Order: sequence, then structure tokens, then C-alpha cells
Amino acid sequence: MAKNLTPRAEDYSKWYNELVIKADLAENSGVRGCMVIKPYGYAIWERMQAELDRMFKETGHQNAYFPLFIPKSYFSKEASHVDGFAKECAVVTHYRLKNAEDGSGIVVDPEAKLEEELIVRPTSETIIWDTYRKWIQSYRDLPLLINQWANVVRWEMRTRLFLRTAEFLWQEGHTAHATKDEAVAEAEQMMNVYADFVENFMAIPVVKGTKTESERFAGALETYCIEALMQDGKALQAGTSHFLGQNFAKAFDVKFTSKEGKLDYVWATSWGVSTRLMGALVMTHSDDNGLVLPPNLAPDQLVIVPIYRNEEEFDGVDAIAKNLMKQLRSKGVRVKYDNRDTQKPGWKFNEYELKGVPLRIAIGPKDVEKGTVELARRDTFQKEFISHDKVVNTVESLLGEIQENLYKKAISHRIENTSEVTSYDEFKKVLDTKGGFILAHWDGTSATEEMVKNDTKATIRCIPLDGDTQPGTCIFTGKPSQRKVLFARAY
Amino acid sequence: MAKNLTPRAEDYSKWYNELVIKADLAENSGVRGCMVIKPYGYAIWERMQAELDRMFKETGHQNAYFPLFIPKSYFSKEASHVDGFAKECAVVTHYRLKNAEDGSGIVVDPEAKLEEELIVRPTSETIIWDTYRKWIQSYRDLPLLINQWANVVRWEMRTRLFLRTAEFLWQEGHTAHATKDEAVAEAEQMMNVYADFVENFMAIPVVKGTKTESERFAGALETYCIEALMQDGKALQAGTSHFLGQNFAKAFDVKFTSKEGKLDYVWATSWGVSTRLMGALVMTHSDDNGLVLPPNLAPDQLVIVPIYRNEEEFDGVDAIAKNLMKQLRSKGVRVKYDNRDTQKPGWKFNEYELKGVPLRIAIGPKDVEKGTVELARRDTFQKEFISHDKVVNTVESLLGEIQENLYKKAISHRIENTSEVTSYDEFKKVLDTKGGFILAHWDGTSATEEMVKNDTKATIRCIPLDGDTQPGTCIFTGKPSQRKVLFARAY
Repeated sequence: MAKNLTPRAEDYSKWYNELVIKADLAENSGVRGCMVIKPYGYAIWERMQAELDRMFKETGHQNAYFPLFIPKSYFSKEASHVDGFAKECAVVTHYRLKNAEDGSGIVVDPEAKLEEELIVRPTSETIIWDTYRKWIQSYRDLPLLINQWANVVRWEMRTRLFLRTAEFLWQEGHTAHATKDEAVAEAEQMMNVYADFVENFMAIPVVKGTKTESERFAGALETYCIEALMQDGKALQAGTSHFLGQNFAKAFDVKFTSKEGKLDYVWATSWGVSTRLMGALVMTHSDDNGLVLPPNLAPDQLVIVPIYRNEEEFDGVDAIAKNLMKQLRSKGVRVKYDNRDTQKPGWKFNEYELKGVPLRIAIGPKDVEKGTVELARRDTFQKEFISHDKVVNTVESLLGEIQENLYKKAISHRIENTSEVTSYDEFKKVLDTKGGFILAHWDGTSATEEMVKNDTKATIRCIPLDGDTQPGTCIFTGKPSQRKVLFARAY
Repeated sequence: MAKNLTPRAEDYSKWYNELVIKADLAENSGVRGCMVIKPYGYAIWERMQAELDRMFKETGHQNAYFPLFIPKSYFSKEASHVDGFAKECAVVTHYRLKNAEDGSGIVVDPEAKLEEELIVRPTSETIIWDTYRKWIQSYRDLPLLINQWANVVRWEMRTRLFLRTAEFLWQEGHTAHATKDEAVAEAEQMMNVYADFVENFMAIPVVKGTKTESERFAGALETYCIEALMQDGKALQAGTSHFLGQNFAKAFDVKFTSKEGKLDYVWATSWGVSTRLMGALVMTHSDDNGLVLPPNLAPDQLVIVPIYRNEEEFDGVDAIAKNLMKQLRSKGVRVKYDNRDTQKPGWKFNEYELKGVPLRIAIGPKDVEKGTVELARRDTFQKEFISHDKVVNTVESLLGEIQENLYKKAISHRIENTSEVTSYDEFKKVLDTKGGFILAHWDGTSATEEMVKNDTKATIRCIPLDGDTQPGTCIFTGKPSQRKVLFARAY
């Protein structure tokens, strides 16, 4: 077993940081708060992108691309939006450098000052709605269903790889509709698309819900979200979908003529997931030996490691390996054959364990004799010897089983770590002993939410859409509560 | 025929601008020099991306992602690089806005000034080589073959949609090698990959060659390029691949230990193509009626337009359309069935002509009776009636034929518009009468190149890798010339 990571029980945060770097997912760059996504990490992100993109297109969305820069004045047009984003943004003020007159290097050319500063997009509602004004005149132009894959920048002071970085990659959907009902249905649909993706593709169970007023997106009337629970008992927001009402349409004067010839503002949604999902992936499935990848997301689903002492042995092993690789690839299994002679088998076992490859086949001279291979699972460490003719079927069924097993493990963990409490004392005790999700009654006010947060660092993750809807009394104020809500400390 | 574009013969530049906007490819945004790539244009770009990405992976490259921002000091490390890019870059100087004290809106917060300015990447050599220093220690780490899909910013003063924009999308490959020969071979390989893609996928013939010293990438020892000829006789550089020698390795101190235990700087290449290819696509194939798309790049390869006067007629037409659509899709043909009743058939014909859909099927009540459909080609405007059972085969063979025909037309145009001249008078005469590519002898000096450029606006597009290599005398100075080079006025 690999011994190169700090165990989770010792220091979860350190374990995470080490794993992200050692498994070659990402690393810090020379630019404050900006990460480099390494090839292995990026290959996983590409698999997420491909699947999400497919799901967006299947639900009628098209991709487009809008400018990286947003003129400062655009931000001011939607009041709550500017409050939410102005405090942490990268501002472009000049468009040229020049050689310093004292020969000290290159400096900003003061003569190349922009008339109006440009903000590097932290999110694109304003630039997109400025464009939609030109695209939308009539009900025939609606619904407008657009998605963008892009980089965005939010000047976070404390950053962590994938979880919180100044620059991150994401997709942002921006849609326009003729009616309020359609826009609400779209926002709900996209929350469901995200939940489907995160649960079935990433094997991470989520709770669907709406955000409280104080946790809503800046400019939204309703924020739908999916919340996941990490191994350390902290929550992670895995995706959000916003019903924006007519706020941006009014701010950017986007009106349409209805079938009945009436002029009205259009209704909007926006929704996004980001490279933050990589953090959720790591913190849901991985263990002290390294990354554990659901087969759907694994760039390599299976690795074949040959074991041999001399050329003759290699030839026997190699022939079997190549034959199996061919058979597996023809079934669509992503196979890597690591026949490098610069590294020993033990080193390779360790490496692929660290990188979370779901299945490993080792073939040695004895296997050649017996007509078997050793097949090992990354998730359970189970090993078995199987005959060559059973490899393809076994691998195919195991990949499905691993995908399912990871989801089951994660949902068991969530069930074990979801508590219902009836008093504030109990609430604080659960928070400090086991953490996790806590369902509790809340009086519906931002004031109470704020006081609980200041006291315990726990926030309301969401008002769940499903589950117990019995009224009760707020654990903090004793006032009436409509239903229990979901609290947790969160990333 | 569509009459909504300025004819090319009247004003080629106006025709281009109108076409890009009316065919829904892109438009100008509210941000100076930055475009919005509209869904239809982006769908074509996605097809280019998918094919290039496949070709890069097939040649052993992996994708990764590096920061958008580059600290100012990184630029200064490679002297010719900073000269090439410092004069046109977006500079981030602050990281926060705040409410103005006089209530006049939001302003840059002077207290949030960065210690070191950040440049929005115009290209990523510096930030990537700063990272490679950590990734490369030994010959085992080489070759390092990485590509990045990204947005970059160059503060151009005169911009045109796709051809020259402040922000554009591209891919940039950055590779590191143990030997000079390997790096040169990689740079040449990627030029060949680009040529293969542009010729076979985009149906645009190119001339492969190397740039003269004055036209090289800032920091390169050799720039390989592919040059295409547009319909108006101007050249367009469609892709470049650079052999960077050890310049960036030395600037960022990237050394490796060889098999023999020797420490040496690594050898580098970089290579890229951008959304500029969209401009090349438009200006190579399109006509006065609109866009003409090679079937490989067309988001919709065939559109079906139903023609009917009442519901009964529609039912008959609709059944055939749906049946054909199903058959064609099962063969992998990208089919759009436009059954909207908000637009008339004539409007639709015009629309899909403007958008360059390669094939159109119209089905009316008479076709239902006769068991035929009308099939029309976008490239030649040929129409024929064919029976239902022949549709699939005919469409499949026509798509191949159109792809081929577009390439043939383009190469004929290039042959007709490539001249060889032996005197400077002849050179100027050809330039002013027909333009196009001009092969002529040149004495090999930057001084001569510069004088010709100042006098005629023609530049040396490349020193071709193939073709006539006979020595001669320079048309401008009469000095000895090693071989003819390729001149043209260029985009």
C-alpha cells in the first residue's frame, strides 16, 4: 500500500492538498491564486465537460462565446449584482507596457490608460444581457438557450486548488424566456440535469434545494442548488441554477413582443458548475492511498502491468497483454498498457493506485503458464485470478459494479452523517462531534441564520425540495418554522 | 437567389463583414475589439476543435490548462519575446472596485493596487516555461507534449471579426525535447498536422514554408507556417509552428539530466491556430449568396424543408421527411428538419443558403404523389428530383463530392492567381492588377524585404518548402538569390 500521503484521519486538509498534487491533478502557479491544471486532472475535467455538454445539447442548448472583459459601467446596471462581485475582481486599466526610461525594465505606459476600466468576467450576466438586447425582439426569438464554456476570475484572498481559486474554468448557461413559468421550469430543469450528472456520472449523491435569501446569487430571485457531503463532514455546493426574474432584462432593457402584440421584459435564468467539481470528486471517493475514480470519469479505466525478469518472459507476457488490450478496447474500455522498462512493477502499482485507475491487470510468467491474469480493484483492493477468456466480461461488469459501489458508499456515508436535531444545544454538539448535514427547524429570517453562522460557522446549505416538510419551532429563537432546513459547515 | 449581401466584386471587405453578421457567425460586442461568437459560428468552431483535438491526441499530445495572467516580470525574461508582445497587451493593475465617495458610481479602489502588474496572456510561453522548470528534471520526463485550448488577448488597434480581434480563441501547443533534432521534427510535424487539417477538413489548399527572420515569432529560431490564398487575392496565414531552440529553457532555467548523466537545457516548440481560421473559411468558399460550408465543417449537412398548404398536405410531407431524417441520421448525416410554421419555404431556402448548409431537400405534395424529393446543392446550385429510395446513397456521395469540389475550386483559384515574375516592374504590375501569390527571387536580406513592403505593402509570406529551388537574382537588388520566395499582400 502507498504510504506517501498524510492519512485523512490525521489531517484531512493536508491529505487533500497532497493528493491533488501527487496524483498530478493540479498545482499552484507563479500567479497568486491561479492554478495549473495538469494533464491528468485536465483529462478528468474533459470527461466531465463532454458529458455535461452532451446533456446541455440534449436539452436544447447551444454553445456560444462572449467577451472576457466587461466594461465597468455594465456592472452598475444591476444593483445587487455589483455589490456581489465588485469587491473581488481583476481590473484592466492599461493596454500597453513600455521600457522604463531609467532602464529598470518594463513598466505600464501611463499614456495607454483605458477611458473606462474593464473587469475580467467573474460571471457573464451583464455582458450577455447587453448582447441579448440585440438578439431578442419577438416571442419567435424565445426561448434563447445558450451555454458558454469559459474561464472566470474572482479575486479570492484564501485559495485552495480546485475548491477556491482566483481563476477557474466553468460553464455558464444563460437563458431568456417569454414567461415566468418557463424560466422557473428551466432553472429547475438545469438543477435536475446537474443532480443527474453528479449522482450518476460522478457517483456523488446530492441534496436538491433552494438557497435562503442571504445565500442567493447576486441578482437572483431564487437559487436552486445541489449540495454534497464530503468525507470530513463538511458540505460542498456542487452546482447552482438561478431564476433571475426580469432583473437583468430590466437592467439591460431587453423586451420582446408577445404573440398578442404586447411588449414585455423577458424572464431569465443562469446556471453553472465549475472545476470545483474536481474537488468534490477527490473529497468524496478517495482514500489514504490516493485518488479513487468512478469508471465514468477515469481517463484510464484499466491499466495492464507486465511482470518479467528477462526478454523471453516479457515476450510471453506482452503477447497476452496486447491481445487483452485489443479485446477490451473493442468493447470501449479505456485501457492503458504500461510497458515502460524504466519503472518497476511495484512503482507502477503504487502510481496507478495514487491516480485512482479503477482496475489493474498484472500478468507475470506464471500467469502465462496457467492462462490467467491477476485482476485488482482500486475501490475495495479485492484481487482475483481469472482466465484469459473471462477477462472482457469480468472487466465490463466490474466497471459497472465499481461505479455503483462508489455511489452506495457515498450515500451510506451521507445517511450516517445526516442528523436531525430539535434543540440548539444538540445542534452545536452534533456539529462539534461528528459534523455532517444537520436538519433543523429555522424561523425563516436572515437574522437568525446570521447569528447561527457567527456562533457556529454552520450555514443553511439549502431548503430541501424533498423530505420532511412538517412545521415546527426554530431551534434558535423558538419561533414558528415552516419546515426543517439543511445546515452544515461548508467548503 | 439571396440578394441581401453586397456582392464581392463591388466591395469584398463589406461583403465579408455583412456575411459574418448575417450568417450568424459573430458580431461586435460592447467591448472594444472583442467579438461575440454566435451559436452558429461557435458550432463550426467546435467542429474544428474536435477534429484538431483528435489529431493532437493521435500524435501523442495531452491537454492541460495554465493561468490567464502572467506576471509582468516573466515577460522580460526572454528579450525578443517582450519586444514582440509588450506593446499590445491588457494590463491588470487592481483587484477591487468600490463605491465612489462622491456617489458617482463605482471606481477602482486605489488601495487594491497589485504589487506586480499582471498581463492577460497574449500567448503562454512564459508562464508555461516557468511551470516546466518544475516538471522536467530527467530525460525520462521528455518529450513533454502539451496543448492548451484557451482565450488570449492582444490589444489590436484595428480589429475585424475573426481576422483580428483583441480577444480570440485558440489552441497553443508547447513541447519540450531532449534534442534539437526532435524539437525541429515536432515543429515540422505540427505544421504538417495543420496543413492536413486545413486542406482535408476545411478544403482550403495551403503552401507550407518557413518565415523570414523579420516575420518570425518573437523568440523563435524558425517559424513554420501554412499560407492560404483568399478569393480577393490576399494571403492569410492559417497556422504557425515554431522551433524555439533553447531560448525559453534558458530564460526560465529548464534543464534536464540526459541518459548519459549530462545536464543540458531542453529544446522547445510552440504552435497554434485560432478562430482566425473562421475568417479563412468564409473568404475561401463563400459566395454572393452567403456562406458555403464544406460538409466536414457544417453543423447541419442537410436541411429538409416541407412545402404544404394545409394540414392534410403537411401530414403526407411530414411522414416522408421524418422517415428520411431517420435513415440519414442512422448513416451519421447531420440533418435538420425545419418544420416551423412561422416561416415560409422561400424564407427558409434563403436562410439556409445564407448559412451555407451543403444540401437541401424540399418535399411538396407533388413529391408525395410521385415518390420523389427535390435535392439541391449549395455549392453549385444544381437541383435534381430523386426517388425516396435513392436519397440516402445520393446524399452520402454528394457530401463527399461537395467536400472535394470545394477543394478543387480553391486550388484552381490559387493556381490561376499564383504568378512568377522576374522583374520588380512585373512584380508591381501583377500586384496591382490581379494580386495573388507571387513567386520571385529575393536576396535574403531583411532590408530588401522591408523596402519592398514599404513600397508595395506586399510581404514575404513564406520560403516554400516545396517547388522551384533554382537560384537566381533578386528582383529588387539584382543580388544573388537562393530560391524564389512567396510574396503577397496579406490579411
